[in-house]
This record gives sequence, C-alpha cells and structure tokens, in this order.
Amino acid sequence: MQPQLPHQQKNRRIKRLHKRKTGLPPGTLLYTGEKKSSEITVHRIAYNSTNYAEKIFTDGNKLNLEVPEDSVLWLNINGLHNEKFIESIGNHFGLHNLILEDILNVFQIPKAEEYPETDQFYITLNEFYIDDQGKLNRDQISLLLGKGYLLSFQEEEGDYFEQIRERLRTAKGKLRKKNADYLLYVLLDSIVDSYYIILDQYSGQIDVVEETIFEKKNTNHLETIHQLNKDMIFLRRSIAPLQEILFRLLKEDAVLIEDETRLFLRDVLDHVQQVVSQIDVDREFLADLVQTNMANMNSHLNEIIKLLTLISTIFIPLTFIVGVYGMNFESIPLLHQPNGYFIVWGAMILISVIQILIFKKKKWL
Amino acid sequence: MQPQLPHQQKNRRIKRLHKRKTGLPPGTLLYTGEKKSSEITVHRIAYNSTNYAEKIFTDGNKLNLEVPEDSVLWLNINGLHNEKFIESIGNHFGLHNLILEDILNVFQIPKAEEYPETDQFYITLNEFYIDDQGKLNRDQISLLLGKGYLLSFQEEEGDYFEQIRERLRTAKGKLRKKNADYLLYVLLDSIVDSYYIILDQYSGQIDVVEETIFEKKNTNHLETIHQLNKDMIFLRRSIAPLQEILFRLLKEDAVLIEDETRLFLRDVLDHVQQVVSQIDVDREFLADLVQTNMANMNSHLNEIIKLLTLISTIFIPLTFIVGVYGMNFESIPLLHQPNGYFIVWGAMILISVIQILIFKKKKWL
Amino acid sequence: MQPQLPHQQKNRRIKRLHKRKTGLPPGTLLYTGEKKSSEITVHRIAYNSTNYAEKIFTDGNKLNLEVPEDSVLWLNINGLHNEKFIESIGNHFGLHNLILEDILNVFQIPKAEEYPETDQFYITLNEFYIDDQGKLNRDQISLLLGKGYLLSFQEEEGDYFEQIRERLRTAKGKLRKKNADYLLYVLLDSIVDSYYIILDQYSGQIDVVEETIFEKKNTNHLETIHQLNKDMIFLRRSIAPLQEILFRLLKEDAVLIEDETRLFLRDVLDHVQQVVSQIDVDREFLADLVQTNMANMNSHLNEIIKLLTLISTIFIPLTFIVGVYGMNFESIPLLHQPNGYFIVWGAMILISVIQILIFKKKKWL
Amino acid sequence: MQPQLPHQQKNRRIKRLHKRKTGLPPGTLLYTGEKKSSEITVHRIAYNSTNYAEKIFTDGNKLNLEVPEDSVLWLNINGLHNEKFIESIGNHFGLHNLILEDILNVFQIPKAEEYPETDQFYITLNEFYIDDQGKLNRDQISLLLGKGYLLSFQEEEGDYFEQIRERLRTAKGKLRKKNADYLLYVLLDSIVDSYYIILDQYSGQIDVVEETIFEKKNTNHLETIHQLNKDMIFLRRSIAPLQEILFRLLKEDAVLIEDETRLFLRDVLDHVQQVVSQIDVDREFLADLVQTNMANMNSHLNEIIKLLTLISTIFIPLTFIVGVYGMNFESIPLLHQPNGYFIVWGAMILISVIQILIFKKKKWL
Amino acid sequence: MQPQLPHQQKNRRIKRLHKRKTGLPPGTLLYTGEKKSSEITVHRIAYNSTNYAEKIFTDGNKLNLEVPEDSVLWLNINGLHNEKFIESIGNHFGLHNLILEDILNVFQIPKAEEYPETDQFYITLNEFYIDDQGKLNRDQISLLLGKGYLLSFQEEEGDYFEQIRERLRTAKGKLRKKNADYLLYVLLDSIVDSYYIILDQYSGQIDVVEETIFEKKNTNHLETIHQLNKDMIFLRRSIAPLQEILFRLLKEDAVLIEDETRLFLRDVLDHVQQVVSQIDVDREFLADLVQTNMANMNSHLNEIIKLLTLISTIFIPLTFIVGVYGMNFESIPLLHQPNGYFIVWGAMILISVIQILIFKKKKWL
Repeated sequence: MQPQLPHQQKNRRIKRLHKRKTGLPPGTLLYTGEKKSSEITVHRIAYNSTNYAEKIFTDGNKLNLEVPEDSVLWLNINGLHNEKFIESIGNHFGLHNLILEDILNVFQIPKAEEYPETDQFYITLNEFYIDDQGKLNRDQISLLLGKGYLLSFQEEEGDYFEQIRERLRTAKGKLRKKNADYLLYVLLDSIVDSYYIILDQYSGQIDVVEETIFEKKNTNHLETIHQLNKDMIFLRRSIAPLQEILFRLLKEDAVLIEDETRLFLRDVLDHVQQVVSQIDVDREFLADLVQTNMANMNSHLNEIIKLLTLISTIFIPLTFIVGVYGMNFESIPLLHQPNGYFIVWGAMILISVIQILIFKKKKWL
Repeated sequence: MQPQLPHQQKNRRIKRLHKRKTGLPPGTLLYTGEKKSSEITVHRIAYNSTNYAEKIFTDGNKLNLEVPEDSVLWLNINGLHNEKFIESIGNHFGLHNLILEDILNVFQIPKAEEYPETDQFYITLNEFYIDDQGKLNRDQISLLLGKGYLLSFQEEEGDYFEQIRERLRTAKGKLRKKNADYLLYVLLDSIVDSYYIILDQYSGQIDVVEETIFEKKNTNHLETIHQLNKDMIFLRRSIAPLQEILFRLLKEDAVLIEDETRLFLRDVLDHVQQVVSQIDVDREFLADLVQTNMANMNSHLNEIIKLLTLISTIFIPLTFIVGVYGMNFESIPLLHQPNGYFIVWGAMILISVIQILIFKKKKWL
Repeated sequence: MQPQLPHQQKNRRIKRLHKRKTGLPPGTLLYTGEKKSSEITVHRIAYNSTNYAEKIFTDGNKLNLEVPEDSVLWLNINGLHNEKFIESIGNHFGLHNLILEDILNVFQIPKAEEYPETDQFYITLNEFYIDDQGKLNRDQISLLLGKGYLLSFQEEEGDYFEQIRERLRTAKGKLRKKNADYLLYVLLDSIVDSYYIILDQYSGQIDVVEETIFEKKNTNHLETIHQLNKDMIFLRRSIAPLQEILFRLLKEDAVLIEDETRLFLRDVLDHVQQVVSQIDVDREFLADLVQTNMANMNSHLNEIIKLLTLISTIFIPLTFIVGVYGMNFESIPLLHQPNGYFIVWGAMILISVIQILIFKKKKWL
Repeated sequence: MQPQLPHQQKNRRIKRLHKRKTGLPPGTLLYTGEKKSSEITVHRIAYNSTNYAEKIFTDGNKLNLEVPEDSVLWLNINGLHNEKFIESIGNHFGLHNLILEDILNVFQIPKAEEYPETDQFYITLNEFYIDDQGKLNRDQISLLLGKGYLLSFQEEEGDYFEQIRERLRTAKGKLRKKNADYLLYVLLDSIVDSYYIILDQYSGQIDVVEETIFEKKNTNHLETIHQLNKDMIFLRRSIAPLQEILFRLLKEDAVLIEDETRLFLRDVLDHVQQVVSQIDVDREFLADLVQTNMANMNSHLNEIIKLLTLISTIFIPLTFIVGVYGMNFESIPLLHQPNGYFIVWGAMILISVIQILIFKKKKWL
Repeated sequence: MQPQLPHQQKNRRIKRLHKRKTGLPPGTLLYTGEKKSSEITVHRIAYNSTNYAEKIFTDGNKLNLEVPEDSVLWLNINGLHNEKFIESIGNHFGLHNLILEDILNVFQIPKAEEYPETDQFYITLNEFYIDDQGKLNRDQISLLLGKGYLLSFQEEEGDYFEQIRERLRTAKGKLRKKNADYLLYVLLDSIVDSYYIILDQYSGQIDVVEETIFEKKNTNHLETIHQLNKDMIFLRRSIAPLQEILFRLLKEDAVLIEDETRLFLRDVLDHVQQVVSQIDVDREFLADLVQTNMANMNSHLNEIIKLLTLISTIFIPLTFIVGVYGMNFESIPLLHQPNGYFIVWGAMILISVIQILIFKKKKWL
C-alpha cells in the first residue's frame, strides 16, 4: 500500500478507551460500542482430523451450541449489539458474568484471565485497521478457550479469520489434527501478524515525513508528526499489555494449554515483543524528527534574518549619507565641487566593500 | 457535559496533599479538612436477602451501633468535623488509633491496611468532582470492612452511594444476598467508575485545546495546557497508588475477602489500571501539544519575520536610490536628462523584480 | 509563614554531601561539620510509667551513662565537635567504630543498620530548617536504639525534641508506658512531621512563582525556578533513601522493634512516601513552569516583532514614495499639478489601508 | 579506518526489522531477506584434538550430514534463499519448525531458546557491517548447538569466521581440544568483538561532529546527528536483547553448556554489556550535541541581531535629523547660519557617541 | 584546589572504553593501554602483627612469589606493558586466563568475579586523576584476593597506596592484625575515597559555571557545560557498576571475605552509593543550567529586539513626516506658513510621546 501522509486525513479522532456504563450496577450487561452490523451472525465450525462441518446462523435462528464429541467446536460471533443473545451463549457455556461484561465493554486494554473452576481461559485483544478516510480504527476480539471448544467474539463482520477457515476447510497444515488450544494459538498468531501490516504502513508514513523534513526545511511538519505520534501512543497502549499477559500465561501452568502449544505461544510473545519494540523505535524516530524539524526552522530563520541584517547594515548608512547631501544647507563641503558627487559615491562604495569584507571574515556570508 | 476550557476558570488552586497537624503528638485525632456540612449524619443500613432496615441519625442522636445477627450492617458517616463522635464510633468497633487518624487526616494518598488481630480491613481513597467554578475537587472516602459490617466515612454529604442504596432497597442484583466484602467491592467499583466520568471531561477539554491549537496557530495556549497538566498530575498522584494497594490485596490472603469477591476486585483493579493508563496517555498528549504549540508559534514568527525581511530588502535599496537623486549636487548623471526620471524608475523596478525572483528561487515566497 | 521569593536570598549555596576526611585511614574519627555550639550538652532522661528523671550535662561534666533497670534511658547529645567525648560514649555502649564514624561524618544520605551482635539498631537521617537569610539548611540526626536505651546525636542544640520531652514530663500519651523502640518511633515521627512544614513553605513559594509567571509574562523567572529546583533536588536526595530504609526495616525482623511499634513505623513510612511524592509533584510543577515561562517569553517576543513588522511594512513603502517626490528631477509626474500633493497622499493612505486589511485578514492584528 | 561524516551518505535507509510473511499459515517456511549470493555454500568442518577435515559443498551437491564419532561437526551454511535445502538440513538434525522459521525470517531481534527434548540450543543474533556507500547493514547469524555438532546459518558468504577456521586448521589455542559448546563460545565472542569495531567507527564520527559543532557554530548539524542517532537506535535495538538472553542462559542450567564454557560465556556477556553501555553513552553524547548545536545557533543569531540593532539604532535617528534639514521649510533654525551644517554634524556625532557608550555599559558591544 | 574552568582545557578527549584486540583468538594476552612507565616495578610486602618486610623488584629481577606462612603477602605490580611477565605471575598464583585478559585489557567497566575452585576473588575498578592539562584521566586497578595474599595491578607507578604502605610500616590502625581480606577493604576504601576528591573538583567547577551564568547572562556557556557533562557521564559509567558488584558481593557468601570485613565493605558500598548519587545530582544541576543558560540568552535577545523595535517604531514614522516636507511639491500645507516648521515638530513630538506612553502601558519599557 502506498504510504499516505496523515495530514490529508483531517481531524481523525481516535476512539478513547473508556467504559460508558458508569452509574449502572456492576454485572449489568451493556454493549458499549456502536452497532456496526445489522444482525449478529454466528459462524459454527466443528472439525477433527477427518471431519469438517461449517454453518452460519444469525441471532434470529435457533443455535446449536452443543460441543460435539471428538471434535473441536469453534463459534465465531460477529456483532455484539444484542446483549440478550450474547448472554444466552454465555449462559450455555457457563461463562462468568465478568467475562460477558468484558466481551461487551469493547473499550478494553488487552487482558487475560483463567477460570480454573470452569476450565476456561479468556483473552481479549485488539485488531486494527485503517478505514477509508485514513483513520486508525480498532476492533475488540475476545477469545474464550474451553474444553474442546473456542468462542471468538468480534464487533463487526470482518474477514480476519477467513484464511484460517480456509485452512481448516482444506485441512492444510496441522491445524485440523490439533486441539482447541492450537486453534487459539493460530487465531492469536493471525491477529499479531496483522499488527506488522499496520506498523509497516506507519513506518512508511514516517519515512515520507522524514524525507519531507529534509527537503522542505522551512516548513512546519509538526502537525503531521503529532498525528503519527498520537496513533503510535494509541497502538502502544493497545498492544503492549499483551506482552505481560502472554508472559504470565507461559509462566503459570494453565491446564488448558498443552506443552507443545506453549512453545508456539512463546513464538507469538516474541512477535508481540518485536512489534512493541518497533513502536518504541518509531516513537524515538518521531521525537528525533520533532527536534530536527525545529532546528531546521530555526536554521531557516537564521538565514532570513542574516539577509535582513546584511541589506540593512549596508544600506542604512548609505541612506544616511545621501540624506546628508539632501540637506538644504548651502555650505556643505563637496556639494559645489564638480567631482563631489563622484567622491561621495566612491566613499559609499568603499563603506559597502569594507562591510562586505567584514561579513565575509566573520563567515556571515 | 459540555467540555469547558479551563482558562475560563481562573486561579483554581489545587488543594495540596499534606498533614496539617505537625507538632501534635502522634495519636492526636484532628480533622484536617474544612467543615463542609453543618452536622454529621449517619446512614445506618442493615440488610440480608429478606430484610432491609434503613435509618438516618445525626451526631446529636444516640446511635445504634450493634451489628445485627445474620445481617450486614453498613454505616455511612457523612462529615468528619466532630472528632469526638468519630472516636466514639471507632472505639465501639475497636478501630486502631492509626485508622482513626487516617480517617480524619483527609489529605492522604490512597492506602490500605489489614489488621488481622481485629479482623478488619481498612482502605482509603479519593472521590473527585468538578465544582461550580470548574475547579477540580477531592473528597476522601475511608472504608472499613469488619466481620459483618462495613463503615464508610466521607467528608461531606454527597450522593456518591445513593444508587447503591437504591439497589439495596429494591433488592436489585445479587448485592442483598452477599456478605459485607461484596458491599465493599460495590462501593469501590462505584468510586472507580466515577473516575471515568472525570477523565472523560478532561479528555474533552484536551480535544478542544488540540483543535484550538491547530486553528489559532499564533496564540500561546500554554497556560491552558499548564492547568490541564496540573490537574492530571494531581489525579495521577491521587489514583495511581490504588493499583499497588489492590494488587497487594489480591496477592495476600486477606481473610475477610471471599474468593469470589476477589475475582470482582481484580476487575476493579483492571479498571483502575485503565484509568491510570488513560491519564498517562493524556499526559503524553499534553506534552505533545506543548511542543506543537511552541512549533506553531515559531512557525508564525518565521512568517512575520519573512514579511519584514521581504519589505525591507526590497524598499531599503530603492529608498537609497531615490535619496541619491534627492542630493543637492548639481551634476548628478541622468538628473537633467528628460527621461532620467523614468530610467531611474526602470532601474528600481528591475532591482525589485530581480529580488523577488531570487526570493522565489530560494522558496521564501 | 509568609512565602518568600527565593531570589531575595542571593547566592545561597547548598552544602554538598561529601566526606572530607579523605586520606585518613578508615576508622579515624573526625567530625566533618562546623562547630555549631560552644559546648556539647547531653540531655539525660530516664523514665518509666511512674518515674521521670531529667538532667543536663556538658562535655566537661562526669556523665552518668548507666541504663537504669525498669526504665528507658534517653541520651540526647547536642554538638559533635568533640570527637573524644563522642568516642567515650560510644565505647561505653559498645558502638561499632563504623557507627561512630557515621555519627561524626555529618554529610550522609540517610542510612540504617542493624548490629545483631550488640542488639543495636542505628539510623541516621536529616532535619531541615530555613535560616535567617532564607537558606535551606540541614542537620544530621543519628539515633541509636539499644536494649532499654536510645541515644540521639545532633549537631547543634536545637529544640527539635522539646515537645517530646514535654510530653514525657507530663506523661501525656502512652509514650511513658512504652519501651525505647516506641521512643524511636516518636522521634522519627516528629522529624518526618517537620518535613511537611518545609515542603509547605516551598509549595507556597512555587505558587507565588506560578502566579508571577502568568502576571508578568515578559520576565525571565528561570533564576528563581532554578533555585527552587536546586533545593527540591537536595531535599529529595536527603529524604528519599528513608523510604527504602524503613521498608527494609519493616520487612526484616529486627528483634529490637516490637510488633506493635512496627505498625507505627509503617505509618511513618507512609508519611515519608507522601513527602517524597509531594516533592516529585512539585518538581514536575517546576519543570512545567520552566516551559510555561519560556513559552510566555516567546509569545511576548512575537508580539514585539509583530509591532516592528507592522510599523516597518507600513512606513517603509511610504517613505520610499515621499523620497520619490523629493528627487530633484524636474519632470516628475504630478509634481507640478495643483492637486498632485493630495493625490500622492491619497495613494499613500490607500496603500496603508490595504496593508492593514491584509494584516487583519491574516489575523496579525 | 578514517571516520567519515554520515551526511556524505545520502538517504541511507535502515532495513526495518519485520516479518514479511503475514498472511501465511504459521509454520510456512519463507526466507524474508534478499537473495544475497548466487548459490548456497556449506562449509563442513569436523575436528578433534588430532584430526581436522574441511570440505565445501553447494546446495547442488549431496551433503554429508553425519556427525562423526569423537569429533565435533561444524556446518556453516552461507545463504538462506533456498528454503527446501534449509528444511532438509533441519529435518536431518530434528530441528523444531519454529527454529527453521526463525532462521529464515532474517528480521529478528536476538533471541535464544533451549529445546530439551532434542538436546538443542538455538541462538540468533546480528552481525553488522558498513557497506561501500557508508550505510549500516545487518546480517542475521543463527547458531544451533547440538550434541557434538554446531550449525551456523548466515545470509551471505562473508568471512566472519575465517579466522576461527584458520585457528582450527592450525590447532592454535585450545579450541581443537574442546567440545562443540566451546566452539559456540568462540563464534559468539568473535561476533561480539566485531561490535567493538562498528562502535569505534561511530565514536569516531561522533568526535568529528563534536569538533565541527564547536568550530562552525552557525551551521545546522542536526541532519548529521539525526542520522547517527538513527543508527545508534538501530544498533541498540539489535544488540541489547543479547544481554538478557546470555544472562538467562547463564542462570538456567542448559545441559549442553559445560561449566567451564559457562565462565567464558559470562565474559561474552560482560563484553555485550560494555557494548550496550557504550551505545548508551554515545546516545547521551548525541543528545548533548543536539542541545549544544541549538544553543550555538541561537547564540549566533543573537550576534547577528545585535549587529542589526546596533546599526539601526545609531543610523535611524541620524537619518531622521538629516531628513529634518532636507525639509523645504524656509525658516529652519541653523539652516542659514554659516556653521549650521557643522553644528548639526556635531549633534549627530554626539548622539552616536552617547548611544555607543550606553551599549558598552550594557555590555552589548 | 582552586576550581578551574574546563574551557581553558581545550579539546580534551576522553579515552573511550573499548577492547582493542578484536580479531585475536580469545585467550590471547595483550595489554591494550599505553606503555606508561619505562619498567615494571613490583612492590612486595609481607606482614603480620609483629613482622613487616618490604622489597621492590623490577621485571628484570627474579621475583620471590612465595606466600610466607603466618603472614599476609601483598604484591603491588606497577605497569602492565610486559604481558609475559604478568602471565608468569598469573601462572604462579593459578589465575584463570580470563582474569589475566581482564587485567591487561585496561578499558574495562568495573567488574568482579569469584573463582571458588582456586579460592580467589577478582575485582577491577578505576582510579581517576586530572592531569597537567586539566584532562580527566583514568587508571585501571585490578585486585586479586587469594588465601593469604593480595595482588594489585596498576598501569602506572602512582602513589595511590603509599599512605596504606606507610600505615603498614608504622603498624598504625588494626591493619597489621588483620587478614588479606581486610587489606582488600582498605585498598577499596582508599580508591573510593579518591572519588570524593575528583567529585569535589567538579562540584567546584559547576559552581563557577553557575555563578558565571547568572552574571554574564548574554553569553553562551554551553560548551563548558557540555565538557563537564561529558566528564560526568564518563565518571558515572566508570563508577556506577561498582554498586551492583559490591551489593552482590555482600549478598553471596564469598568464602574469602570474613564476616567482620563484610561490615566494612558495606560501608564502602555506602560511599560508592553516595558518590553515584552526587554524580546524578550534579548531572541534574547541569541539565538545569543548560535550560537556565538558554532562557537567559533568550531573555537577552528579547531585550535587544525590544530596543530595536522601540527605536524603529518611533523614528520610522518621524522620518516619513520629514520626508513629506522634503517633497518638491509647491503647495504642501504649512510649508509656507511662518510657524509651519514648529507645528510639524510639535506633531512629531506628540506622536513620539503617545508611542512612548503606549509602550509604557504595555510594560515594554
């Protein structure tokens, strides 16, 4: 994708992370996002190494929530605006009320929690995309791993996981032979992979800004840098907590995660660390560019003022001299001499030359 | 609420956190705040899943402090200016003298302490509100959890907890079925929720400042930013210690907190972390805006000086030329030629055009 | 106390923390401070819940150093300039040579050490005061807790502990009923309390600077801020290590400190943390004020340069025009027309009006 | 090597660390670098204290991968662009798929992993060099230690390890008598040694910039500093993680590393820490130089403006005076006096002298 | 010592810490410093509480390296440029090759290592001095503690330890009665003591800079501050790691260090911490001074520009007016009136007075 300068994207306001339902009793389920799709669709996939069944429901249909024996069940719920519907799914799988709250409260920083009583592991994280107006947007993805099943909740019907579904259908890779915890890894891996794409776009933008700064030195690029920095702060805040979560997850002995999957999750952690480290480097670059931009502007100002000083210091004394000979005294020396005019010119040229020589010596020219 | 620019709120001075009673022996009880309400009122609520009793006393009345069997007792004390009265309550419940000191010394940063001998858990934290003059204000709330009872102390009769009382009255939610530790959670949750509202107002103000900076580039917005930053520093300092307190509380095995409540407190901790992380992001934004504002002002200055230089460098030489022909020499070349005047004009126009072309080439125009 | 602007206190140099006795063998006892009082006085107090004996010795007198049975002995030594005398006290109580060195080397950052072999606990910390010239000063207080006795060493005869002595005399509070470790707590608490007073004075000064900055925007206040910042750095450095010391003291099981006293020491720790946190907030404020001051000065400069540009760009072209009509050509158009003068004036007024309109449009006026 | 100023190296863009294969299923092997050499060569060395065998294969040849008994096998693979070939080697030695991915994904920050099931230890790190255009470049080196063998993978056929091979051939040092883990140490040591060379070159460049800044005070050196800083950020990011990796490696009991080798690895860690500490110091220097440069430019600007002010304030009043006597009034005082002209000159000289004296007193000259 | 301003010490380049022998096999012994003394001298001292023997050898002599029974042997080696000689000493005492490398590689940051197999403890640290040209210099001191002996290696024959030798000779202090580990402490203590002297000199220089900044506000002092800061960065880097080393040494149970000596080493640690804390404070001061200096220069610039604006805005309009009456129109009003000249003067004075009043009101005068 062609990097696009962010100042062409006026006024993009980043959605702040907050919790809108203040004032309600804790435990009240309320979707805090916008209704992004008209209806909720549920993608039901059940697979094992030999069989694969896929079906799409909407929240109007009766849903089959049974976990089939010897198969992995993956329910992908698109759209969260129907709290009753989400609650009914939650109740069927015995989800703690706090999980349901977190799924619906879509302005979260990433978090993860193990629920040993129900043998469930819950993780929520963010997916990013840049919309048509060039604004950075965020979708919250919640993943719930249980025994033999995985629930994934997302705000709008995107195709984040279509590639994974395709691989399931064609039985490509070892995904079909593995358990639900491996599916969790695959989903996490695909989300973290998408961070690289977003970061690449920003890196491209930063490179463009950098080049522009060194080409158009007299321009103020801080508005552009400010927008980029704002997005980087936002990305860092929405991604960085993942590090600690995955680290904790790998340290503690979550029963649901098999040892082999643990190795893969460590790989995901490595990637998240790379992403965060890249964000930090980019932010350092931006801070550097702010300084460079300032210095360039100062340097440009110096040049302008130097010119002003040059012209002024040369011509102001000359103007004074011609003023002297414009006075209406009758007895001004040289005035009535035939060569007086040229002698005065000679003096003025001499003064100018001396001044220019002084400037040259002081390296101001 | 409509975000309001803080520079309309002149001279608001944040109450500093300190301890006024220096010089007194430790253990002396002294209320360090202002007397905010005329009399102290005590809200006494006793409830279990079936019964609910509510009564309001003042410090003049005789108070029933007995903890009823099979019920949860919640005493909400509004107003702290009568030290004797607070001490009498403290003595009845066997509160350590240090707790009483902390309750009355209302310039505290949040802290919590477990007293295993008396099976009590004490936590103090802050509630914020913006008053009529737009100033940020702070109330200290102290909560004491004991076996079967909860005491809450606040400086002035606010309606912080009215919603919770209403839920108790109507037996909404599971609050009535739970123990005093769950009530503690509900109170903490409601206080932390109110932080979101305060932060939302500040986020709104910051957005307004940001827009103004990019619209009125030649203005100094630093006074506004300074005020916002001051409030953010204050908020961070008054909220951030809560993180560590709750974290410690969840790690250690406080006997009074049931396992299930622990899960809810972790949720409160998540919210506090979100709030603090939002404050940090807002402060980074403000620091960014300071730089942007400075750069805008510099950029504006450059433009002005560029104009000055332009006008000066064009007209100063011209003025010199016309000065030359204003000299009273008789034998100035061209002076007595019929077209002399127009030749001089031609020369002057030529000089101006050349200067403008040079400026264009150097991209100063 | 009325806050006083520090720039009225010229040239106050903070005493640097260092060790003057370099070059001497380790173990050499040498007082590194100034001789602040003419003679050393020793305040000997022995008390229990029923009895109280107080006596003042000087270093000339024979000293009774015996620890009375069933009583707490408190020796308060004022003045350290007689190394022999201090050593004799140290030898009587079996103090390690390193302790004696630390007592006499009065440019210490706070430290604490337990000596399990001799059942002694040593802590040294600083007391601050602002002298007549408004300079910040520091006294080192060393406290040594032993079984049944407490030694306190200070450089000059101050009245830091007079209030505590008064309370001992009148048997106010529970101080008389407690052991020497409680006396240690009371002394620490009184010292930490005094930090609040110092900080309050600085907070007042910072407020004054803040107001002045926003009133006199064109002045450079950085010298004042620089002095305040220097004092804050000094205070932080001299107080902050106390946090870690008390923290360690509370964690480890110092045998000399009873469990109940431990609870009180935790309270002292809370206060030290509040003080340090207040210093940090004040330093952030000062850093903020530096930026605000800079921006105000820039903003003021912009205004001045704007005026210069305005006057120059309006009058320089006009001066050129009048110069044209001052040339001595005979055939200048308009010159000999009757209304020529007024036509030129009209043109000049027109040019000025157009320039002013352009400035207004560009919002430079 | 002669330090070379980086601004002579226009537009060098640092390769960003990222993972290009987003969108592919995890486990897909794909080389993410450029094809740097035409064919893959494999250096096969088998040695013990008495024997030494060396052979070079290309990816076209059939490879002998057997680990000889009583010998150490070292396979050095140059070039990674043939994924199939790398995979076949990996399969023979039982490498985990994640290792193969990491070997081929050459935009890694350093990492290390132990695989206890297969008794393998994997470490990847970076080698740096400055190419012909003066750009900083990076090669990824992956080392895999197994029982009796060591595999080293590098992107391009460099001579990083030729010295080590030479030492093996000539049986110099104790290398030939030791096991494969000592060879790992020798390779790591040689890579870390090369960091010193790179850093020396940058230190030289920084010294040149520093000198230039103090010689040509009126120039903007920020572009050069910006480029140096960018490289330092890049180096730090690519080297610093090695510290943690080696630290962990020394703490945990990796079975493959003998105790004696551990001591040598600690030495490598010391060197890495020195390198990183030197980078940090260099970055602090650069930050310092940015400030110094800015201040120098400001100082130069002050001088220029001082001159402008001097000339203007002296001549502007004088020009006004001569203008007065150029007015066409008939009755201007002094105008018709014989000495009038000289009296006016006297007044003008007086004014100039007074102004210059004032400037001198204010130390502006 | 009289503090000396560093800008009198042109061009002092700090020796960078690095390792010059890159390219050599690990284990090669090579002295990386300059040959500072013509020959290596070895100071051999053997002592116990009753006997004392001292002898000086050079590297040409045959050396007696035997550790005498019941005595402490201290070998102080001055000069490291003869690698063979150092190696022969190392071999006699069974030093690990890595120790020998570290002794000879004199661009080390401080480090310490225990070698339990040989019952040896190795520590290397830096000694600083300011040479005749006012440049900061560094010597590396390596100390090796073994059973009954201590080896000290230094680059050049200095008198760092002469005082200690004198104390040994005269049997002053308890040094003669103690073991080799106490000698180690005494040497460390003397080195750390010398840090105070260096820091005192820098503190003096910083005070001078501070005063100069507030006296000569219009000067750029950044070059001086830059040099001081560079030295402070260097000192910090060369001293700070000592903290961690001593801390680890005190925690772990190094068998060679007796419990009593441990107490003294803790005292050395306290001193190192004070030194590092003083360096940090000094660096904060320097950062503060940079800002103050900048602000002073800005403030000075403001004053100059204010003057320029004042003169210009007053005289430019006046010059225009006199220009008007210098035009050659015949019918200019007032021109032919007798009082015209004085009326114009009146108008000009009025304009000036009004402008000055406006300036006064705006507080620009």
